[in-house]
Amino acid sequence: MTDSDLDSDPTPADLAEQVRTGALRLHELEDYTDADTAAEARRRLLETETGADLETVGDYGFPAEEADSAIENMIGAAQVPMGVVGPVPIDGGASEGDYYLPLATTEGALLASVNRGLSVIRAAGGANARVTKSGMTRAPVFHVDGVVEAAETVEWIEDADNLETLREAAESTTSHGELLGIEPYVVGDSVYLRFTYDTKDAMGMNMATIATGEACEIVERETPASLVALSGNLCSDKKPAAINAVEGRGRSVTADVVISGDLVEERLHTTADAIAEANTRKNLIGSAKAGSLGFNAHAANVVGAAFLATGQDEAQVVEGANAITTMDAREREVTESSRSEESENSEREREDGTTDLYASVSFASLEVGTVGGGTKLPTQSEALDVVGLRGGGDPPGSNADALAEVIAVGALAGELSLLAALASRHLSSAHQDLGR
Amino acid sequence: MTDSDLDSDPTPADLAEQVRTGALRLHELEDYTDADTAAEARRRLLETETGADLETVGDYGFPAEEADSAIENMIGAAQVPMGVVGPVPIDGGASEGDYYLPLATTEGALLASVNRGLSVIRAAGGANARVTKSGMTRAPVFHVDGVVEAAETVEWIEDADNLETLREAAESTTSHGELLGIEPYVVGDSVYLRFTYDTKDAMGMNMATIATGEACEIVERETPASLVALSGNLCSDKKPAAINAVEGRGRSVTADVVISGDLVEERLHTTADAIAEANTRKNLIGSAKAGSLGFNAHAANVVGAAFLATGQDEAQVVEGANAITTMDAREREVTESSRSEESENSEREREDGTTDLYASVSFASLEVGTVGGGTKLPTQSEALDVVGLRGGGDPPGSNADALAEVIAVGALAGELSLLAALASRHLSSAHQDLGR
Amino acid sequence: MTDSDLDSDPTPADLAEQVRTGALRLHELEDYTDADTAAEARRRLLETETGADLETVGDYGFPAEEADSAIENMIGAAQVPMGVVGPVPIDGGASEGDYYLPLATTEGALLASVNRGLSVIRAAGGANARVTKSGMTRAPVFHVDGVVEAAETVEWIEDADNLETLREAAESTTSHGELLGIEPYVVGDSVYLRFTYDTKDAMGMNMATIATGEACEIVERETPASLVALSGNLCSDKKPAAINAVEGRGRSVTADVVISGDLVEERLHTTADAIAEANTRKNLIGSAKAGSLGFNAHAANVVGAAFLATGQDEAQVVEGANAITTMDAREREVTESSRSEESENSEREREDGTTDLYASVSFASLEVGTVGGGTKLPTQSEALDVVGLRGGGDPPGSNADALAEVIAVGALAGELSLLAALASRHLSSAHQDLGR
Amino acid sequence: MTDSDLDSDPTPADLAEQVRTGALRLHELEDYTDADTAAEARRRLLETETGADLETVGDYGFPAEEADSAIENMIGAAQVPMGVVGPVPIDGGASEGDYYLPLATTEGALLASVNRGLSVIRAAGGANARVTKSGMTRAPVFHVDGVVEAAETVEWIEDADNLETLREAAESTTSHGELLGIEPYVVGDSVYLRFTYDTKDAMGMNMATIATGEACEIVERETPASLVALSGNLCSDKKPAAINAVEGRGRSVTADVVISGDLVEERLHTTADAIAEANTRKNLIGSAKAGSLGFNAHAANVVGAAFLATGQDEAQVVEGANAITTMDAREREVTESSRSEESENSEREREDGTTDLYASVSFASLEVGTVGGGTKLPTQSEALDVVGLRGGGDPPGSNADALAEVIAVGALAGELSLLAALASRHLSSAHQDLGR
Repeated sequence: MTDSDLDSDPTPADLAEQVRTGALRLHELEDYTDADTAAEARRRLLETETGADLETVGDYGFPAEEADSAIENMIGAAQVPMGVVGPVPIDGGASEGDYYLPLATTEGALLASVNRGLSVIRAAGGANARVTKSGMTRAPVFHVDGVVEAAETVEWIEDADNLETLREAAESTTSHGELLGIEPYVVGDSVYLRFTYDTKDAMGMNMATIATGEACEIVERETPASLVALSGNLCSDKKPAAINAVEGRGRSVTADVVISGDLVEERLHTTADAIAEANTRKNLIGSAKAGSLGFNAHAANVVGAAFLATGQDEAQVVEGANAITTMDAREREVTESSRSEESENSEREREDGTTDLYASVSFASLEVGTVGGGTKLPTQSEALDVVGLRGGGDPPGSNADALAEVIAVGALAGELSLLAALASRHLSSAHQDLGR
Repeated sequence: MTDSDLDSDPTPADLAEQVRTGALRLHELEDYTDADTAAEARRRLLETETGADLETVGDYGFPAEEADSAIENMIGAAQVPMGVVGPVPIDGGASEGDYYLPLATTEGALLASVNRGLSVIRAAGGANARVTKSGMTRAPVFHVDGVVEAAETVEWIEDADNLETLREAAESTTSHGELLGIEPYVVGDSVYLRFTYDTKDAMGMNMATIATGEACEIVERETPASLVALSGNLCSDKKPAAINAVEGRGRSVTADVVISGDLVEERLHTTADAIAEANTRKNLIGSAKAGSLGFNAHAANVVGAAFLATGQDEAQVVEGANAITTMDAREREVTESSRSEESENSEREREDGTTDLYASVSFASLEVGTVGGGTKLPTQSEALDVVGLRGGGDPPGSNADALAEVIAVGALAGELSLLAALASRHLSSAHQDLGR
Repeated sequence: MTDSDLDSDPTPADLAEQVRTGALRLHELEDYTDADTAAEARRRLLETETGADLETVGDYGFPAEEADSAIENMIGAAQVPMGVVGPVPIDGGASEGDYYLPLATTEGALLASVNRGLSVIRAAGGANARVTKSGMTRAPVFHVDGVVEAAETVEWIEDADNLETLREAAESTTSHGELLGIEPYVVGDSVYLRFTYDTKDAMGMNMATIATGEACEIVERETPASLVALSGNLCSDKKPAAINAVEGRGRSVTADVVISGDLVEERLHTTADAIAEANTRKNLIGSAKAGSLGFNAHAANVVGAAFLATGQDEAQVVEGANAITTMDAREREVTESSRSEESENSEREREDGTTDLYASVSFASLEVGTVGGGTKLPTQSEALDVVGLRGGGDPPGSNADALAEVIAVGALAGELSLLAALASRHLSSAHQDLGR
Repeated sequence: MTDSDLDSDPTPADLAEQVRTGALRLHELEDYTDADTAAEARRRLLETETGADLETVGDYGFPAEEADSAIENMIGAAQVPMGVVGPVPIDGGASEGDYYLPLATTEGALLASVNRGLSVIRAAGGANARVTKSGMTRAPVFHVDGVVEAAETVEWIEDADNLETLREAAESTTSHGELLGIEPYVVGDSVYLRFTYDTKDAMGMNMATIATGEACEIVERETPASLVALSGNLCSDKKPAAINAVEGRGRSVTADVVISGDLVEERLHTTADAIAEANTRKNLIGSAKAGSLGFNAHAANVVGAAFLATGQDEAQVVEGANAITTMDAREREVTESSRSEESENSEREREDGTTDLYASVSFASLEVGTVGGGTKLPTQSEALDVVGLRGGGDPPGSNADALAEVIAVGALAGELSLLAALASRHLSSAHQDLGR
């Protein structure tokens, strides 16, 4: 159809009708009206076609055009309840001080559980956190004639000069990103090149994709390899893959805390040994038997809720939630002064707290950013302000590092809380059995 | 503090101040005021403490108390842009007819891509879909003295009478759920029992957990086994585990379609062979080399966006997105009449369409529900109305089955669209190389 | 060529020359002479062609024709050093009493290590062992038109009457085997049916294959499914697959033992806590991070050596070695009498042995037999006589069960010995650190 | 006991009796007599204790003392039938020319199958093979206080100067080995350092272990890390781990071949398309659904038999057999001259051979050596002479590279043969179906 078929200022009802009759297509509405009216027209159409009432979907709190780069065929917004947990003191590599973390979820009791864990961590003096590896990846797949050409291609890639040429090409497409390295993999007549980038405060998928595309043109020109797909699934994006669990993607980040035996008893009503046992049987041995890539209790709950609140890519929860949780009972190291105290008081000590709890969560591939993508949307950027980490960090990358650390601490709290609950229930049940 | 410390009708500012001074705790606000005021008080507090402006977070479109069972420490809502794709005709086991699917995401171009795929599927006459396996699982872990007791426990569980006893106990806790079976696993002195339930239209985790808890009491009474945790990670919930990929959880559902070679050429600008090659190198071989549990291109994008729109558990995207995508070039079966036509016209036929495309996506563990949990929230239930699948189905379970089928078709469209794009780019690039 | 081209009693040299000139082919020699002469002729040929001296290869200790069903193109035998470990007392489900286990290996120190572990187990009163699951599998893959036919096929398979029909067909091919069940899996237009059999004392691959082949004819006749391959890799044979790790194949067998703290100290020079820590960091967490399907230290060493000695399929070490090792420090349960002793002696007690060690190894898919295949060969059947488990058991299956239990105990000893060595080295190193 | 308790020249019967009475222990016999007599004494003892007749076990073809470094408690040798396959022309990175490959197995029909495949490869002009990655790994696990110390340790390791210091220490223990790199991994308070070495013609586990041990002393001295175990299972040795499948261990090697459509038809009685389909449904999709780390049909059969024949570590079949098999139907590139021929003859061409078969097998972690370990034993070194690859290569490492390539070609033949058999059976069955 042409513009003239519509009034200069068509109503939503007009537009919906045009779509219904086939004169207009659903995704073309923005060509004829503003974004909010287009969304309303689509709601009208759907209400007519399906009988749904889309009042709340249409009651979103921002101009539709602000969501322009995030959605097509917009009809409104999903509203997911958002709460907040914290504050928790963190001694991180990039984070430092007290943090609140907003979480958006429909999983009742999740925030209560995380908050219980955080309050215990706070009582223990706070958590440590460190990003131990960082890099966004993109791994195109190329077709070659066979392994002879594959070996040639690998050899070409591994030459230092050629790597430099590829780096220049890749980095020419971005003002921030840096190519960290390229790892080749050969399977028959397919060659996969896993490019890794430092994408600073951006999650970096788009940056990595564009930069890799540029480098691929050189690979195609200089080697026998012919590009099949810019992603050959060794990246690996939005699939639970061992390559990410082993080598990392985005941030590899660990959070940990030592909680005194007394605190475990008073606040969690159990013992370090009981928590460690539950963790070993459930998170380590159970996960092993399940053939799992995730050795944790429910890290995905916190990652998912934090991703949603702060505008991360919700589909990256798949690999972002990949974490190993460890819980160990540590014998308290006794100083001279405490030793004398112990001798007077050994009975009590042995019963209620000679062992402290060491708890950690290590994420392999937490892909987060504080600039770009969904972080720019209204509620999401407000949520990042609550964490205090919106936008680019100083130095670049430090805000995304810090966000990864804060989320890891949130997940640590969730693990701690759930395992303690299991252990205390188990303990009380054991006590019942013993007739006490 | 006591009620008397607060005015009978405290303002948000008063409440925020009380929290700031430590007189009240953040999660206690609902004890002193209504849910919306409590949320506002928390926003005030956060705004003071962090400098954030939470205006849009606070601009949610429903009474806060409706989110009572979904969140604690509520401050408002995350608003995620929602669009719609479809309609697409589906010949499913539970779905039948034309469906729209709402998707909430911040991933630009996703809906456009899915919609392109759906329009090709529509042109091909629609997709097929079937749920081939169904069951929600919960797998508690028990402690025994050693393998002698473990074997005794397994033997007890495998006795038909005992299974009946456990079934009665489990089903006594639910009006809908049915216990389908129990599978025992032994690792040293740990015994895991994987309970599987038919939870009808509910996603069913809570139902399965409560029912299993009841059965566990009998197991503890009648066998040497002592419960350590109601979830021993062989369930496996919110972790990417092979046990789900192999045995399923929630719905195992496949969607597929045959697209004629002509349609592939006209609408996708490539060939069935080229799409099949891209799928094999990327989704099959690439995923294999990556040690992946997901053999697809971006199924998580559609699953994540559909889960968010329709109120599913966002953390279950982790295993929900586990899918294998297949794409095959099929030689068209030539009928007598077409055969004679071919002989006259063989040159054309061979070049532009003797092979059709078979495309499928098979999800192993898509956990969805149309009742309970997040499906009750306002925008989410409106979205389910768009699909036409809100609430309990007739027969029970059919709505959740149908929702699984619709999501699978959406994911199929996304796979098709992305792989076709890769293949057509590859083709055009190959053409350039050849100088045409 | 024809028989007349050769003397009635050709020499090895003649035969070798005939092959060299192309008149005879390498695999045809047995048509013209006896098996030993044929093997000698091949050695002659290889000696001429490659310069190798095959004297020891030719010095095998049995008539070549006895190896007829095990090899083609025979040139002699590989001789692998065989030693023996034990005796060890086992309280098993099928094994009972003291067992020796022959091991063939080229891995120096392996038998010494296993024997050290066995002697500690012996001092602890012996090991427990149980087969907790059993069944040999074969999983053909079928082609269907799409998921509609796939669902039909699954439905047909899951009908009890049809299962009975398939059972009759399958069992008609075997005097011993019993079909235990069939599990269907759907991926797009492929349907996999995993048949599980009780194959008694045979490892049972051939039996399962033949029986499944018979059943497949009925499936093809009665359903839309068309057989592509009798093995569709969901069996899964000789590949490390999660389906075996989770669901088992052959025998799922666990061996365990409790070793008193005193014994750990005296014989292993370490503590239960130190061993448990080494196991957790290496076998559980390290394996988790490695994306492993095997959570053990070196179970494959014992499985490989036992398989080789007793005539099992050496390629099934791949999945046969899949095991989870657990090591826990257990607080000793204090009886009244020991409690009073403790009070007098608490200092000593606390330092050197209040915790005992629980050690276990759980194999998921140990495929063993005591009849058929390589077990009939001379050295192999002699080795089975050393274990006391050659031939069919009474009841059928009990010999193979017992062999699985004995191998599991051998592997337990190997794990125990290696982990104790690590722990004691770690301890002594730690002591040095503290001594500075 | 003391030497005086025994005659100066004790008989096997005397020694056996001394063990039986407990005066001597089984592993001490070599202290009192020569290795052959000790082995005989053990056989006597076992014959008495178990009733076994160990005649063939005792009929080994080499002085027992030659097996001194390979076994303890020797009683004789396992004899496994050995045959030979080949010759096959290989165009490899290190191999060049025609190769025979000895295989030791008890799997009847295996050599016949491999030989069929090799003869087709030979007819196709031979196979290509390349080692695309190489390195033996050892990954110790260290204990640190928490992630703060873990991050410090990682930072220290990643410093170029420190790497140089570690390299010097590691390489000081070996005349051949070279440290290629160290990759750190953090999980909570455990740090894993994966050392990779070029171990030339040795498989290299011992070399890598000793060198790593030396380097670990420096790590312990210079960082907060304390060694727990020299192997922390990220190596990963003798376990099927994704880290090896992804990053490789030993040799990553691919063999491939293109077989003309005519040859596929004449010799394999099927088509490239049918073989490709069987491979996709079984080796790719079936393995994917099985949660497998091995995407092949039976590579372990060839690897196991070659390892056994040539003195490799039989337990390393576990990861050595990890391979991805690809089979593609390739449209034949038509030259001008063949094009004109085609036009006259298009009917025949289209039916029996417009598509050729590309077949490949890619091993990720084939750990082989031609010096040291079991390669020194008599039958094993003779077998290596048959391949022409005994001892150190020129340049160093080239013999082990070549052996990896030859084994890969053997496995390729096995895959080809089995898949062709499946495809031809499927084809003929399909023809029957159509013939009705």
